[in-house]
Amino acid sequence: MTQNDIRHEIAHLAHAELFTQDLEGSLWFFTQLLGMRETARQGDSVYLRCYEDPYHHSLKLTPSDEGGLGKLGWRTTSRDALERRAAALDKSGLGAGYTKGDVGVGETFAFTSPDGHPMELVWDVEKYRAPDELRSKILTRTSKRPLQGLPPRRLDHVNIMASDVTEQKTLLEQTLGFQTRELVVDGSTEIGAWMSVNALGHELAIMKDATGARGRLHHLAFWYGIPQHNTDFAEIAREYDIRIEAGPDMHGVTQGAFLYVFEPGGNRIELFGNSGILQFEPDWETRVWDLQEFATGAGLAIGGTTMPPEFLLYGTPDVPAHAELAPSV
Amino acid sequence: MTQNDIRHEIAHLAHAELFTQDLEGSLWFFTQLLGMRETARQGDSVYLRCYEDPYHHSLKLTPSDEGGLGKLGWRTTSRDALERRAAALDKSGLGAGYTKGDVGVGETFAFTSPDGHPMELVWDVEKYRAPDELRSKILTRTSKRPLQGLPPRRLDHVNIMASDVTEQKTLLEQTLGFQTRELVVDGSTEIGAWMSVNALGHELAIMKDATGARGRLHHLAFWYGIPQHNTDFAEIAREYDIRIEAGPDMHGVTQGAFLYVFEPGGNRIELFGNSGILQFEPDWETRVWDLQEFATGAGLAIGGTTMPPEFLLYGTPDVPAHAELAPSV
Amino acid sequence: MTQNDIRHEIAHLAHAELFTQDLEGSLWFFTQLLGMRETARQGDSVYLRCYEDPYHHSLKLTPSDEGGLGKLGWRTTSRDALERRAAALDKSGLGAGYTKGDVGVGETFAFTSPDGHPMELVWDVEKYRAPDELRSKILTRTSKRPLQGLPPRRLDHVNIMASDVTEQKTLLEQTLGFQTRELVVDGSTEIGAWMSVNALGHELAIMKDATGARGRLHHLAFWYGIPQHNTDFAEIAREYDIRIEAGPDMHGVTQGAFLYVFEPGGNRIELFGNSGILQFEPDWETRVWDLQEFATGAGLAIGGTTMPPEFLLYGTPDVPAHAELAPSV
Amino acid sequence: MTQNDIRHEIAHLAHAELFTQDLEGSLWFFTQLLGMRETARQGDSVYLRCYEDPYHHSLKLTPSDEGGLGKLGWRTTSRDALERRAAALDKSGLGAGYTKGDVGVGETFAFTSPDGHPMELVWDVEKYRAPDELRSKILTRTSKRPLQGLPPRRLDHVNIMASDVTEQKTLLEQTLGFQTRELVVDGSTEIGAWMSVNALGHELAIMKDATGARGRLHHLAFWYGIPQHNTDFAEIAREYDIRIEAGPDMHGVTQGAFLYVFEPGGNRIELFGNSGILQFEPDWETRVWDLQEFATGAGLAIGGTTMPPEFLLYGTPDVPAHAELAPSV
Repeated sequence: MTQNDIRHEIAHLAHAELFTQDLEGSLWFFTQLLGMRETARQGDSVYLRCYEDPYHHSLKLTPSDEGGLGKLGWRTTSRDALERRAAALDKSGLGAGYTKGDVGVGETFAFTSPDGHPMELVWDVEKYRAPDELRSKILTRTSKRPLQGLPPRRLDHVNIMASDVTEQKTLLEQTLGFQTRELVVDGSTEIGAWMSVNALGHELAIMKDATGARGRLHHLAFWYGIPQHNTDFAEIAREYDIRIEAGPDMHGVTQGAFLYVFEPGGNRIELFGNSGILQFEPDWETRVWDLQEFATGAGLAIGGTTMPPEFLLYGTPDVPAHAELAPSV
Repeated sequence: MTQNDIRHEIAHLAHAELFTQDLEGSLWFFTQLLGMRETARQGDSVYLRCYEDPYHHSLKLTPSDEGGLGKLGWRTTSRDALERRAAALDKSGLGAGYTKGDVGVGETFAFTSPDGHPMELVWDVEKYRAPDELRSKILTRTSKRPLQGLPPRRLDHVNIMASDVTEQKTLLEQTLGFQTRELVVDGSTEIGAWMSVNALGHELAIMKDATGARGRLHHLAFWYGIPQHNTDFAEIAREYDIRIEAGPDMHGVTQGAFLYVFEPGGNRIELFGNSGILQFEPDWETRVWDLQEFATGAGLAIGGTTMPPEFLLYGTPDVPAHAELAPSV
Repeated sequence: MTQNDIRHEIAHLAHAELFTQDLEGSLWFFTQLLGMRETARQGDSVYLRCYEDPYHHSLKLTPSDEGGLGKLGWRTTSRDALERRAAALDKSGLGAGYTKGDVGVGETFAFTSPDGHPMELVWDVEKYRAPDELRSKILTRTSKRPLQGLPPRRLDHVNIMASDVTEQKTLLEQTLGFQTRELVVDGSTEIGAWMSVNALGHELAIMKDATGARGRLHHLAFWYGIPQHNTDFAEIAREYDIRIEAGPDMHGVTQGAFLYVFEPGGNRIELFGNSGILQFEPDWETRVWDLQEFATGAGLAIGGTTMPPEFLLYGTPDVPAHAELAPSV
Repeated sequence: MTQNDIRHEIAHLAHAELFTQDLEGSLWFFTQLLGMRETARQGDSVYLRCYEDPYHHSLKLTPSDEGGLGKLGWRTTSRDALERRAAALDKSGLGAGYTKGDVGVGETFAFTSPDGHPMELVWDVEKYRAPDELRSKILTRTSKRPLQGLPPRRLDHVNIMASDVTEQKTLLEQTLGFQTRELVVDGSTEIGAWMSVNALGHELAIMKDATGARGRLHHLAFWYGIPQHNTDFAEIAREYDIRIEAGPDMHGVTQGAFLYVFEPGGNRIELFGNSGILQFEPDWETRVWDLQEFATGAGLAIGGTTMPPEFLLYGTPDVPAHAELAPSV
């Protein structure tokens, strides 16, 4: 298969599992502030969905000693595509075999990213069917807009930290067909990559973990698509004691309207207030930012935001870090 | 090839040619009110682009006795894909052979829709390279945000009228791989179809032409992606004597934030104020609206807008029509 | 006192009482969809407030056989001002004497508008003091932004219908100092007046009641101040079966961003999505719209909205009306 | 007169004169980026107005060796009010006598703030009458919405730095009737005051000048009233090399949506993206922020913005300052 063919094997990010140090706090955050609805509980875990998520759940919360990523589920474009990608992952040494799935999820193929982030490919998913009282009048909306909190519409993307961005990026390009839309380089070292398998500017970002740790989560992003909602959620965060790290503002990279907050379980969550750049060119040429332009030009923020050093250091699970580890600009 | 494979052969709508009865008026509209930039003139035609359009131009204006669609250009995902789609079009009897292209456009494969709309497939395009003074600090932005008017970011989609929606839809599915995301039916007759080859809710819509005419344009849409901009442009339209047909409001179908106006050349133009629903499910099940729910429920408008009868009758070129031809609801 | 002095005697619209045919339905609408908080119950009435309203309540809901206005409370700028305005009202024959007040409201001076709308002047009000759990971090915000529904920030204005706009307007100018900011005339007959005592484009509008009825309510308006929120509330109204009459759009008159819906108790409610024009000129010259320009130009709607005939006929209490009564344009 | 009466003697901020080190640069900024229209030139000065400003001009640009405030013009509510306020200013020792006025401005009464900021009271102003081609269809709009840049609607407010906030505030309360809506205190020292004579949350702010300089300008603010426009202007500022100091974000104090940029003449300009809190209570009780809550809580920014130290130090004319002068928090 050509790289162009491989790119159409992965459809989108279907679900994510987050570890939380404070399950009740995380549940309050996701259901009361973000209006997500609970669809199941199993073991200690709780399953949640946004009102336009297509499947049974997009978020699984599991109690743990520390925050972090439990799992990322990528849906393929067909069962055959899943098998082809599984073979490629096995060949690259990343494959971990088929699993029985989960609530609302059938058999999956487990693997890890080169840096150790747990992931899986999935074809068999339970499509969400709203009960009558939650059925929307808008047919492409899988359930009614909630009246609780300020509800995002769907899971959008994930940003993971990696000890070696280039290795991570290259293997995900090769095995899963991700296209690298934008890169940040510090001299000859790649320190950030924004990758996608569809029109979104990114479904997966990789940022260099300056602490040297492996397999950490930078953030999980939920989609509003409406710029005002990031401003509204910043107000809600202030009023209800959720710490805001940065935003609302817009990144130059991906043109995404961002708001970063920390949920009570310790994980950084992004609310995404526009669609970012939507890219349709099949022969897109990766845009490359140098670190200086990225950090002090339009890259990190088009508006006046100065990202705090922790933005480049903090991830979950948390590890000891010193501000001097942040890339100097 | 499977239908799933075919769906990845067309990348997106790359350019459109509009006929205009009033070239100067149309140019004033597109450049002074919408801030598009002229990139070339050839013969009587003028070539324009939005500031985030990827190629040499997205709009070609050509003087004519009446408004209408000169041509729609679909970019394929590869040269091979173009050849495969050309073969399929030839087989279906729609193909019209290779052309020499146009300014900024290399060889194309011409064809018509089943209803006679002139279209072409293109792989060779001139990517736009901004001169220094128009280079944006935002690397995914192909040129600086203009200071003139209220500029949309790119060409978004096209809506065409057809004497037979089902025939039109079926052949475009079969030959080009479009996926039908939403349908409107009047009893057993399909009267509207919203189709896409990517994550956009639609890149191509087909609406039944109640006048019985063939090959007409309903509207061409340009993308703001920011809901407020539709409100802003409605103000500008009012102030500068551009007739507003409907909006700003949101369609339930596609969840698109719409504003319909008529440019001086007679064509209906939509300004698109959000991203609409973005769809990533590979096995999407077409949503079907019945006419009643479409016309009086959330389908045509989520807000309070009542679409005027002309919305279902007027297209370009204009033909005599009577309001009683509009589907009764 | 000069007219200029009188204009500073009324501070603002402090509270309104609505009659409702369906108290439970109205309560659901105002608390679950609009996120207003209940502050008291007395007799059959329920008292509510928006999160930035300054006093004990801005809305009192009282069950009745039909919708309509129970009372409008105007706060004066001082106790002396109240006494001077009471004297002027008495002199004009509109005064109805002092009352004992209500929950959260001290002594008031009751009067009716010339058309019979029940009103009162008030100086003694209970300022709202939020309990700890509802205290906002934003010091000018009298209580925390609610997480329920899409909450407006405060009561904004009232629009009343009158059998004779000129008489109504003139007496309210003379007795209370309202300044008439905009007028609509049908030939020599005034059919609409927008009046204010402060920087708001209007706190009080009067529209001719084409049915000939007296003392009816056209609508009560609550303030978002954020244009996007009108779009959001239109979605919520659709999803939760609240009938939308018109909007979201902007009036040319007052430049107000409007959304008109009907609450379950029968009353028309406006959600106000911007600040409208804010006017500071002390010697403002009343702007006069002729009916044609008002109805078909930018007056009623800057965007594409066509107001339904009921907009000029329906009020509460409801009376039989025929569309042909609407002013012809 | 009571303090309540005095409060209605000043109507609003009518015009401001800015000194600029770079007249051509400032003109480009105000006309090309902000779409203000030139209405006159006299001597070396250029007069500009926003499209909804009521008078001949709201901004006068005058070349100078350094940036700063040339003059602030406050319009009174009547001629009598002007005379009464002039007498009060004379009595307080601040009065500087009557002047012949300026282009579009009749006789004024000149005075200085206690800290030395040049100001004047004005009653006689030339109301702007748009020529036919600039006449708006919206009758409360004094001229058509421009197509150039991203035009604010009117001059909004001014923020001045003072060596002694309390003295400045007290004298402006006593002589002009300003109401102090919000205060920031550092222990027992007042370091910020937000004052208004109308429903705006502030028309005049005073911030302590930590450098000890006198009579400096912190910023002049122009009003969009639409939150999205601050985001849009941030993009424009980035693209066209205007330095952004902070924002878009919202202050907790005044609830104003801010964007601070530096115009080429050296002055800090705020774009104001909402209406801020609108206050109608005649007996408003001043809200008091302590410095800690102001600087690190919701006071300076509701969102994630960290104001740079220069925000509390830089003003025009510029003076040498060291970051350590900024209030410690």
